[in-house]
Amino acid sequence: MKIKGFLFSAVQAGIRYADRLDLGLVYSETPCVTAGLFTTNQVKAAPVVIDRERLKSGHAQAILVNSGCANACTGTKGMEVARATGSLVSEALGIADDLVQLSSTGVIGEQLNLEPFARSMPALVKGLSADNFEKVAEAIMTTDTVRKIAETTVNIGGKEVKIMGMAKGAGMIMPNMATMLSFVFTDARINFPELHKSLTKSVERTFNRITIDGDTSTNDMVLVMANGAAENPWIDGDSPQDRQLFQDGLENVLKDLALQIVSDGEGATKTITIRVCGAKENEDAEKIARTIATSSLVKTAFFGEDANWGRILAAMGRSGVRFSSDRVDLAFGHVLIVKNGLSLGAEAEAAATQVLKEKSFAVCIDLKDGPGCEEIYTCDFSIDYVKINADYRS
Amino acid sequence: MKIKGFLFSAVQAGIRYADRLDLGLVYSETPCVTAGLFTTNQVKAAPVVIDRERLKSGHAQAILVNSGCANACTGTKGMEVARATGSLVSEALGIADDLVQLSSTGVIGEQLNLEPFARSMPALVKGLSADNFEKVAEAIMTTDTVRKIAETTVNIGGKEVKIMGMAKGAGMIMPNMATMLSFVFTDARINFPELHKSLTKSVERTFNRITIDGDTSTNDMVLVMANGAAENPWIDGDSPQDRQLFQDGLENVLKDLALQIVSDGEGATKTITIRVCGAKENEDAEKIARTIATSSLVKTAFFGEDANWGRILAAMGRSGVRFSSDRVDLAFGHVLIVKNGLSLGAEAEAAATQVLKEKSFAVCIDLKDGPGCEEIYTCDFSIDYVKINADYRS
Repeated sequence: MKIKGFLFSAVQAGIRYADRLDLGLVYSETPCVTAGLFTTNQVKAAPVVIDRERLKSGHAQAILVNSGCANACTGTKGMEVARATGSLVSEALGIADDLVQLSSTGVIGEQLNLEPFARSMPALVKGLSADNFEKVAEAIMTTDTVRKIAETTVNIGGKEVKIMGMAKGAGMIMPNMATMLSFVFTDARINFPELHKSLTKSVERTFNRITIDGDTSTNDMVLVMANGAAENPWIDGDSPQDRQLFQDGLENVLKDLALQIVSDGEGATKTITIRVCGAKENEDAEKIARTIATSSLVKTAFFGEDANWGRILAAMGRSGVRFSSDRVDLAFGHVLIVKNGLSLGAEAEAAATQVLKEKSFAVCIDLKDGPGCEEIYTCDFSIDYVKINADYRS
Repeated sequence: MKIKGFLFSAVQAGIRYADRLDLGLVYSETPCVTAGLFTTNQVKAAPVVIDRERLKSGHAQAILVNSGCANACTGTKGMEVARATGSLVSEALGIADDLVQLSSTGVIGEQLNLEPFARSMPALVKGLSADNFEKVAEAIMTTDTVRKIAETTVNIGGKEVKIMGMAKGAGMIMPNMATMLSFVFTDARINFPELHKSLTKSVERTFNRITIDGDTSTNDMVLVMANGAAENPWIDGDSPQDRQLFQDGLENVLKDLALQIVSDGEGATKTITIRVCGAKENEDAEKIARTIATSSLVKTAFFGEDANWGRILAAMGRSGVRFSSDRVDLAFGHVLIVKNGLSLGAEAEAAATQVLKEKSFAVCIDLKDGPGCEEIYTCDFSIDYVKINADYRS
């Protein structure tokens, strides 16, 4: 995958492990209008603190990203090292420090070592090429088992506009995009307010709708860089329709990446959509769906392919939303097994159990209480999740 | 263990499994002042609905409790069957229906079958004896691996007052006492308002301070029955000191039971106390402690005996409480490994790892921001937790 005006590079810097791509660089031939969203976790990693400050300009030209060390909980020293890594890039590329965005993922609480960055910088810069997008997507992986990339094109004013993104993330995902990194590149010509608005709305409906284990991280970020190379008519405050077209394209790319993240959830064997309808408000539907999607008991039952709807009802009951349990309908896929809060019996349950054997299915709940409807995407909770997370640092 | 005026019995009724005590009866020779607290889950099991109504009188004389079926999400039929099981007891014992408290634990969503109750009632009543307290404690077990009992005595006005309790619960435990049953018996002479107050305060500091998996249930309850046989001076609104003595005794029994529940958490290999001090308010300390204690990533790291304090900081950061991460001290047991938000290095971490090998340890966090201090008790998150819950119904 390629996109006009963007160059990519990745190397094995040996930040934590040998023989693994762990340092990536993205360089735009021209400064880009750039919008970013960052973790809402109060403990923010050094690169997050720096990027937020730098992005106040609405511009960036490069992204330096490493895996192996999160550079979080590292104090003033962590900030200094992060800035120093950025300076290596700005000097090598001959651009301003402030145009370099920094991003890290990995273990929290360990100091980042500047040496591997300094040693690798010449090779990293030398490797910049339009062809290396996938290599950067590999370099940002930690417990991910597959790289995650997606692209789309939209037609804006007769011009093909490309949107191309990568993401990493497998654990620590919940509301507000936790240890998830995503970098999106587009040749759209769009101003900062419209780009920021498009990003905010798209993230709300994609990355913020997935959950793996309820934890959130110190390092999350999603950046979108727009270089304008498509020469489409400017997307600005006067072109709401074009902005919508762009936003839909962006949302498609982010949704694709978000679902890739869920299906690569740590230890996940299944991807599950929790769809709650008939709530008084969308917000109520979301709250219920999220409570179900984060229940360890529900998720272990999914892993066990057990149509244990009682646990789903119990999770709903602690969501904080008022509803009448004797009106609830619940289906696995198209198999209704609960009607008005009561079991439809062994036959329905046997059919539902077949649905649970699929790699991907939906749980559909109707509260019959209003128009509110929302979906949350999650995965099951397996023995391997525990194994992966008990062993992560060893 | 025995207590004046209370008789106990348990039988194998075959409610779900053969060859297992699954039906228990407690009978007080005189009506008891009785206080109860019930699940805050909005989906409430039939017995919970009935008991709350009956307890408005502040009195009870018997408890009928079964495992194997929760009688939750069972509609009007579930209510009818629950009442019918109570009538079997009231008729056999010659007491009013309203003096019988009902309690169920087990699978949600399946109808309770009256037949095993009817068949077993003669043997159950015949078996009533002062000596069978432990048998009832066994009959209420589901995924529990050990029965949980505790007792204490307090001296009130020159009289020995006994407080003796049992509990069950291993999963679905979190705030607000979820699928946890606890029955406490005392010979104290105490009026209803004081008994209720003592129970509420004690539960707040014990059962509501433990968490296993963040889920809560439809069936939780704790009942305390006081028959007055100790002939102590009445504990009423005029004797706040005696009430405090009684409440301290009750709290000791409940704390003992609560810690037994945590250490028997599904798949648990370790019991962990999360102690947060130096918060602005107690409430802030509790919120942070609870977020840590329910984080899957933190709990799997405990299972892996990995002193991964970064995950603890990350959990704190999403607790919703404002604090300065660069002032945080963190210790495992007596081993300080984070000072002012920074790692104290490999040696401290190696010493902390030794602490994590213990069966029971504390994580102590100081925010240095105020007088707020709270503890939450939890367990680790193991491979067996997933196994148990993936297989629970099969």
